[in-house]
Amino acid sequence: MTPSGIVTLLTDFGLTDPYVGVMKGAILARFRQATLVDLTHDIPPQDIAGAGFWIERSYRWFPEGTVHLVVVDPGVGGGREALALEVDKHLFVGPDNGVFTAVLGHPGPKRAHRIEAERLGIERLSATFHGRDLFGPAAAVLAGSSAGGLELLGPSREPPAAFVREEAPASTRDGVHGRIHGSIHGSTSGSVVVTDHFGNLITDIPSAELPAEGPWRVRLGSRSLAVVRTYADAEPGQCVALIGSFGTLELAARNASAAELLGAGPGDLVSIEAG
Amino acid sequence: MTPSGIVTLLTDFGLTDPYVGVMKGAILARFRQATLVDLTHDIPPQDIAGAGFWIERSYRWFPEGTVHLVVVDPGVGGGREALALEVDKHLFVGPDNGVFTAVLGHPGPKRAHRIEAERLGIERLSATFHGRDLFGPAAAVLAGSSAGGLELLGPSREPPAAFVREEAPASTRDGVHGRIHGSIHGSTSGSVVVTDHFGNLITDIPSAELPAEGPWRVRLGSRSLAVVRTYADAEPGQCVALIGSFGTLELAARNASAAELLGAGPGDLVSIEAG
Amino acid sequence: MTPSGIVTLLTDFGLTDPYVGVMKGAILARFRQATLVDLTHDIPPQDIAGAGFWIERSYRWFPEGTVHLVVVDPGVGGGREALALEVDKHLFVGPDNGVFTAVLGHPGPKRAHRIEAERLGIERLSATFHGRDLFGPAAAVLAGSSAGGLELLGPSREPPAAFVREEAPASTRDGVHGRIHGSIHGSTSGSVVVTDHFGNLITDIPSAELPAEGPWRVRLGSRSLAVVRTYADAEPGQCVALIGSFGTLELAARNASAAELLGAGPGDLVSIEAG
Repeated sequence: MTPSGIVTLLTDFGLTDPYVGVMKGAILARFRQATLVDLTHDIPPQDIAGAGFWIERSYRWFPEGTVHLVVVDPGVGGGREALALEVDKHLFVGPDNGVFTAVLGHPGPKRAHRIEAERLGIERLSATFHGRDLFGPAAAVLAGSSAGGLELLGPSREPPAAFVREEAPASTRDGVHGRIHGSIHGSTSGSVVVTDHFGNLITDIPSAELPAEGPWRVRLGSRSLAVVRTYADAEPGQCVALIGSFGTLELAARNASAAELLGAGPGDLVSIEAG
Repeated sequence: MTPSGIVTLLTDFGLTDPYVGVMKGAILARFRQATLVDLTHDIPPQDIAGAGFWIERSYRWFPEGTVHLVVVDPGVGGGREALALEVDKHLFVGPDNGVFTAVLGHPGPKRAHRIEAERLGIERLSATFHGRDLFGPAAAVLAGSSAGGLELLGPSREPPAAFVREEAPASTRDGVHGRIHGSIHGSTSGSVVVTDHFGNLITDIPSAELPAEGPWRVRLGSRSLAVVRTYADAEPGQCVALIGSFGTLELAARNASAAELLGAGPGDLVSIEAG
Repeated sequence: MTPSGIVTLLTDFGLTDPYVGVMKGAILARFRQATLVDLTHDIPPQDIAGAGFWIERSYRWFPEGTVHLVVVDPGVGGGREALALEVDKHLFVGPDNGVFTAVLGHPGPKRAHRIEAERLGIERLSATFHGRDLFGPAAAVLAGSSAGGLELLGPSREPPAAFVREEAPASTRDGVHGRIHGSIHGSTSGSVVVTDHFGNLITDIPSAELPAEGPWRVRLGSRSLAVVRTYADAEPGQCVALIGSFGTLELAARNASAAELLGAGPGDLVSIEAG
């Protein structure tokens, strides 16, 4: 696999401080030709599951051979390993804390390597900012190596256990290793994963699990929502459900915030019902 | 016209979610050498007039042949057309919903083309994210074509009607097709278009319409403000008027927020009076 | 010194308006090959000391020959000079208002030049946006000149007086020319400079001034905090002190905001005590 030279960045650093910029400096110091693309830096602090959802939904829109740097790392300086992955012809770098669980759900072959500071010639590693001191340099090595550079980072290892989708009560959820959703008693269910900037409530129910034939509606608490194709099909202010642009069920309102109108957010349960 | 290879981005997507980053991925997947520059992604959701004001004021600071991608698109998935324009040796891509009205006020020649998904080889178009699925790829084609690529996107069409400045009561305003301002009874007037990060109130009254000879003052409601050349000419906390850096009349306070001090914002009327 | 071609940007412009984007356009119009990296644009408006702290802590993570553009400029349009510096094999561009005081504390050789608009062929200089009209173009000249371009910008001058660290009461502080800290009666003290996105309180006490041998604790008002190596060494919710990733003493809480828990912020005094 040939690297694209692109490195995407997804963190909980925010943009108020120069942390993201300094991490980019550390990347450019190792690989001057890198093309850097911010995915977002507004992941809520330490929200590993939210970061994991977005990287899995986002990576495929970049060219093959892109390196995706994900740093949501509450355990920095502690015992968690540093991890580099190859999945679906993309490369991933970040802490081994569950942030790649959703990515590892991909059915294809996977490779995993530890990242070891000494392999990268890093002598001084701060105790609190491995994005700059370890993960950024590792991403630069992967992006700048002519034929994929996992071997340059450290020894091969088993990929972390992927989240395996299973039949389970919708209420059994695990914030770190992914939310569980599935079909219960013939009824598909899941939960809201993120509320976006527009107030859309994005769920983890993939379009493939939705009824192929209608009519059907979506239940959130005591509310029952009609299903439409696009925002423009709703009346202004009406809350509806649709398949969002990242391929999962989404609750939305036309020119308004569904999160506010419905009083809902991450963790709330959503189910499909005949309608 | 030779493309500069630069694509600017102006949207209401915010930076909380990876929408902007994913749109950049879709651009780079088509044209790996693109230089991407964010103008802003904090246009208030669906504020077509605000986006239109800023793109018209901003584009000229980039090299000729730059592509300006503007996605404020409340009608996504509905019937509005997708539009590509050439105006003043710059290229513009976005929905045909009035967002380019101010740009089309330029007196020079203009070209317009429809953007058609099939021309771009796009098979799957989401119903809710044409920034990623259609406008981004179209901008990539324009930025990467050696001699301008409007013909590659779709058939030629008439440019949308530009906002034509006319004599009219200042109270006649149209949020989508531009605000009307002009000279009434010999008195220039207009309105606040945006409040910026510093609390400056930026109006749509261009410097060319201001009195060439003084003295004159600026009226906002019951307040009358002195005119100065630069922020440093005001007393700390004093509200004044000046010609802002984008060439329109601006209300400002030194080291303070004029918006807060004056209790004013977008839509408020401003007029010039002898002083 | 060979330029790296990289220009970093640190301002108080915010990201709500297209000011940063337009400044980038002005840079690219002069030097199309520039690599632009945002440090932050969320410096509190007119906070010269905060900007000065961050640029001094950040620049060294970029390759030598990088140009650092710092625009926090409340005196724009007034009498302050425009300044270009070479310090520690890096280049700096911005207003001569104290924002480079911390950078000038570097012990090595320094060069300073005035920036003169006419040298850059600039005819029209707005009264309110020198980031776009003067500093951005000057940064582009420096980044694009094959052998350093200070001479192209204007005449040589004396560097501004650097902040000289001295023995002084911790209460003697100067918001513009840097905070004074030092060792008083054998007790090291300083103050909080910034609160970061995570609620960490970052002080101006460099690690070199901390006790080489323990045990010691950190005092903030009536609170006494234990010193740890990394966030993971603290109990959840416990406030501790550690050496932050930019080499100064930092007060932090594990997975929580120390600023909130301690009710502290910029300007608050911090001292070291035997413990």
